[in-house]
Amino acid sequence: MEDTKSAGVTNIDAVELAPEGDAVIIIDQTLLPNEVKHIELRERQQMFDAIKLLKVRGAPAIGVCAGYCYYVLARGYAGKVSNGAELAGAMHEDKEFLNSSRPTAVNLSWALNRMEEAAKARADEPASDVLAALRDEAVAIHQEDLKMSEEISRLGASLIKDGDGVLTHCNAGPLACLGYGTGQGPLFYAHDHGKEVHVFADETRPLLQGARLTSYELSRAGIDVTLICDNMASIVMKNGWVQACMVGCDRVAMNGDAANKIGTSGVAILAKHYGIPFYVLGPTSTIDRNCPTGDDITIELRDPDEIRTMWYAKPMALPEVKCYNPSFDVTDHTLISAIVTEKGICYPPFEQSLAALFE
Amino acid sequence: MEDTKSAGVTNIDAVELAPEGDAVIIIDQTLLPNEVKHIELRERQQMFDAIKLLKVRGAPAIGVCAGYCYYVLARGYAGKVSNGAELAGAMHEDKEFLNSSRPTAVNLSWALNRMEEAAKARADEPASDVLAALRDEAVAIHQEDLKMSEEISRLGASLIKDGDGVLTHCNAGPLACLGYGTGQGPLFYAHDHGKEVHVFADETRPLLQGARLTSYELSRAGIDVTLICDNMASIVMKNGWVQACMVGCDRVAMNGDAANKIGTSGVAILAKHYGIPFYVLGPTSTIDRNCPTGDDITIELRDPDEIRTMWYAKPMALPEVKCYNPSFDVTDHTLISAIVTEKGICYPPFEQSLAALFE
Repeated sequence: MEDTKSAGVTNIDAVELAPEGDAVIIIDQTLLPNEVKHIELRERQQMFDAIKLLKVRGAPAIGVCAGYCYYVLARGYAGKVSNGAELAGAMHEDKEFLNSSRPTAVNLSWALNRMEEAAKARADEPASDVLAALRDEAVAIHQEDLKMSEEISRLGASLIKDGDGVLTHCNAGPLACLGYGTGQGPLFYAHDHGKEVHVFADETRPLLQGARLTSYELSRAGIDVTLICDNMASIVMKNGWVQACMVGCDRVAMNGDAANKIGTSGVAILAKHYGIPFYVLGPTSTIDRNCPTGDDITIELRDPDEIRTMWYAKPMALPEVKCYNPSFDVTDHTLISAIVTEKGICYPPFEQSLAALFE
Repeated sequence: MEDTKSAGVTNIDAVELAPEGDAVIIIDQTLLPNEVKHIELRERQQMFDAIKLLKVRGAPAIGVCAGYCYYVLARGYAGKVSNGAELAGAMHEDKEFLNSSRPTAVNLSWALNRMEEAAKARADEPASDVLAALRDEAVAIHQEDLKMSEEISRLGASLIKDGDGVLTHCNAGPLACLGYGTGQGPLFYAHDHGKEVHVFADETRPLLQGARLTSYELSRAGIDVTLICDNMASIVMKNGWVQACMVGCDRVAMNGDAANKIGTSGVAILAKHYGIPFYVLGPTSTIDRNCPTGDDITIELRDPDEIRTMWYAKPMALPEVKCYNPSFDVTDHTLISAIVTEKGICYPPFEQSLAALFE
C-alpha cells in the first residue's frame, strides 16, 4: 500500500482513504480537543457537509480530502460507464457540488479539477483502468502534500536551535496540512530529530485554533507547549522565553508581504521590538505572482458573533455593540526575517528571492 | 443630599448609599452586560461576598463601597454604644472581616482604615454624632473619587481631537472608578463636551473586561464603540483608524514603567510602531514612590482555567495543556507618551515629571 501515513511524532492522520477504497476517513476537527472521532465519508452530501462545516479544514487537507472524495464517488459510477470520458461526464455534477462547499478554498477546486483532468486524459480507456488511475492520482496529491510539508518542516527546523523557545499563532500543523504541517511543521520535525523545543501557542481569537488545535497537536506529540492568550505574547517575549516566531501563511505577495490569520502582524511587530526573528512558512503555491504587495490582498470580514457570542455559555457583549472581525491581516515584509518554502528559504530582499523560486 | 451622582453621559452608578442610609446599592457587575441588576448590601456577609466575588470591582469603586459598608454596619451598633471609641471597638471585627475579602486590594484597606480613624478621632463624642460624621466621611471618599476621575478625564480629553479614533484596553471606566473613570474617562468626558470619538475596545482576554464592561459602558452612553479581539489592534492601527491609545494603570514605577492589565505592553509596542501616541491614566495613588522601575513589580499569575475553560460552553484546550496566565504586564516607559494624573499630565523624562507631582 502507498505510504500516506503521518510523519513521525505527529501521529495524526487527519485525512485517509479507507483500505477498501470505499470511504474517506477524516478526524472531525470540530469536536477537538474534547473528542477524537474518525468519521467515514461515503456519500456526496456527507463530503459536502464535512468540508462546509470545517470538520476537515486547512487548505492542504481540504485538497487531499477532495481528491479522495472524487475517487470514492467515481467508484459508484464505474460499473455504469464504459470509459474515462463517460466517467468524467458522470462525475461532473458531483464534482461541481463538492466544489461549492467552500467556494473560496483554492485547494478544493484545484484538486477536483486535477482529478477530472486525470479521467478526461484517459477518455478512451476502460472505466476500471481509469478508476485505478484516479486512485493513484488522489494518492499522488496526498504524497506530494506530505513531501511539501516535510521539506518546509526540515528547512524550518534548521532555523531552530536545541532548547529554543518558539512562539506560534493559529494552526498550520498536521491537522491542517497533513504530515508535519507548515507553520508548525518545524516544531514536530525538530522534536522528531532530537531537538528540544519549547512552544508558546497563541490561542488565536476569535476561533481559538491555537487552543483547540495547535496545543492539542503539540501536546499529543509530547512536545512542551504552553498555551497563552494572544495578548500575552509581549510578556512571554520580554521574559526572554522566545528565540523565534513561526507562522503559516494564506497568501504571500511578491514583495514578501504575507497574509495570515488575524493577529500575525501584531506578533511580527512584537518580535521586531524584542529582536526576535520572525519566520513565515508555506508552500510556493501560496505565493501569488499576480499580487505585487500586501495592499492588493483583500481581507475577509467575518460574522461579529464570532467575537460577541460564539463559544460562550452566555453573550459576552451587548447585541448592539459593533464588532470588527477581520479574518486575516497582512504582515509587512520589513517585519519578516525569512519565508520558508518547500523549494528553499527566501531572505530579504524578497522581491528577488521569491522571484527566483519561479525561475 | 450630597452630590455623588454619576458624571454626565455615563449614567452608571456602580456604588451608591441607599437614601435611608441602611444599605449600599451596587450594580452586580458579574451579570453584565446581559442583565443590569442593582443589589442592596445590608449584612456584612453580603458585603464580603460582593467584594470577593467581583460583583463590585475596580480599585476606586471598591474603596467607595467599603466606606459605605463601614457606615451601614456602624448604624447597627450605634444604639448599643455610647461614644466614638466604643463604636470603633464594636466595628473592629466587622472591619477586619470586610478587609479579608480581597487582601491585595489597597483601596479596600485604605478606605476601611480611614473610616475607623474617623470614629476613633471622635472617641468621646456621642455615638449619634459619630455616626453622622461617618456618613460624611464615606460620602467624602466618594466625592474625592469623583473629583479625581473628573480631573483625569478632563486632562486626558485635552489630548483627544474631535473625530479621533481611540483604542483602549481592559476596563477603567464608570463601573470600576465611578464618575467618568480613569483609563476610559476621557472618552466619556470628550463625548459630554461635544467631541466626537470613535472607540476601539480590546475584548481583553482572558476575563473579557473589554467586551463585558467597557463596550457596555460606552455603548450605553451613546459613544461610537467597536469591539475587537486583542489580536486585531494591529490591523485597526494599520487601517489608520486610531489617533491615540488610552489605558488605565495598576501601579506606576518612578521611572514611568506602568503595570496594567495583561496585553497593555503589546498595545504600546504596536502604537509605537505605527506612530500613535500611547497614554496611561491613573490617580497619583497608583504611583509607587518605593518602586524605582517596572522590574520591581511582581506580576500576579492566575488560574490556567481562565484560559482553558472559563466562559466557555466546552473546554477549549486539553486539560493537560500548560497555560501561562499573567494578570498584568509592565509597559516600558520608553513606549509611553504621557502619564495623566489628577494633578497634571506628566511627560518624559518621567523620573523628573513624576517626582515633581510629590514636591
